[in-house]
Amino acid sequence: MSKGADTRQAILERAASLASRRGLEGVTIGRLAAELGLSKSGLFAHFQSKEALQIQILRHTAELFVDRVIRPALKAPRGERRVRALFEAWLSWARADLLKGGCLFVAAATELDDREGPVREELVRQQKDWLELCANVAKTAVGEGQFRPGLDAAQFAHDFYGLMLVYHHARRLLRDPRAEERARSAFDALCAAARAPGKRQAPKTRAS
Amino acid sequence: MSKGADTRQAILERAASLASRRGLEGVTIGRLAAELGLSKSGLFAHFQSKEALQIQILRHTAELFVDRVIRPALKAPRGERRVRALFEAWLSWARADLLKGGCLFVAAATELDDREGPVREELVRQQKDWLELCANVAKTAVGEGQFRPGLDAAQFAHDFYGLMLVYHHARRLLRDPRAEERARSAFDALCAAARAPGKRQAPKTRAS
Repeated sequence: MSKGADTRQAILERAASLASRRGLEGVTIGRLAAELGLSKSGLFAHFQSKEALQIQILRHTAELFVDRVIRPALKAPRGERRVRALFEAWLSWARADLLKGGCLFVAAATELDDREGPVREELVRQQKDWLELCANVAKTAVGEGQFRPGLDAAQFAHDFYGLMLVYHHARRLLRDPRAEERARSAFDALCAAARAPGKRQAPKTRAS
Repeated sequence: MSKGADTRQAILERAASLASRRGLEGVTIGRLAAELGLSKSGLFAHFQSKEALQIQILRHTAELFVDRVIRPALKAPRGERRVRALFEAWLSWARADLLKGGCLFVAAATELDDREGPVREELVRQQKDWLELCANVAKTAVGEGQFRPGLDAAQFAHDFYGLMLVYHHARRLLRDPRAEERARSAFDALCAAARAPGKRQAPKTRAS
């Protein structure tokens, strides 16, 4: 990477961390400049507006998510094993707390749900892509004959997202020591309900 | 109510609406005074600090939730019908959008999960009470022989909360026209998995 691209990455990392704690609205060019020890005019050279910066924070975090969750999970064999790999990678992402304030997407969802404009649109587009990917992975399990043929894959993806949202709530807000165990039970129940009659659970990819 | 108590209620209503849009941190005594056309010193007479105000906002909203969700649902007969009444009342609460920025508890959960102090503690206490109440209502369905004897009621409550969180996400962020239908499917599946063998679904309390 060029030095300019390096600097830009470093800025976005810090900005994403700030956004996870203060919300995207809390990331002002002034506050970020102070955190980084850069001049405001220097930051403006990279990001022409607060809105452009917020969109770049979301894209930067989405790229991280692709690298850490989607890409590794898609290496698993098609079918229920891939669904489970997605779940495990997603759990690891949530547990890693890469950003001090927790998952930026979860925080941004409640922050932006009552706003209009390009930042919200970026988040909505990302979230729809993610739900669609989850649905497509569930369909590979239908294709492999592990999940039942009539499965509503979009509903599966919706429910999958729900169990991750409440995992986040249990772990980070309630500090429930059983949060992960609850998430695993919910995931197992979701797969059991999706499974074709007579099909047993796919082998797990790790001990749990 | 005395005039003082009336004023206090009116202030808290406006403050809760502001908090739903700007976050609890966005409710400063100065901003609230400006919205209400009151003096800052007048507001300080009611709330001695920003933190005290934030706690009162949470308590005020919890009282509304008790009136609109818990109290009506507890009038339903014990058992699965009461579980369903809780779900319907909760959906109505979410749909009503009493606060312009959506459900304050959902927003506060991501806002406060990385903070410490009495405001967070108040929210955690409320959320634990609510999950416990959901678990206790599920237990009435076990008691009535509708849900199976070995049901993990805390897991049921956790999953119930998950389907409401993702309903909120689908409706408010994604503006998914099928959000409510998805919530109903998820709820039906949750109850089906909890039901005692051979038990049919309890009669619905309203057409759906």
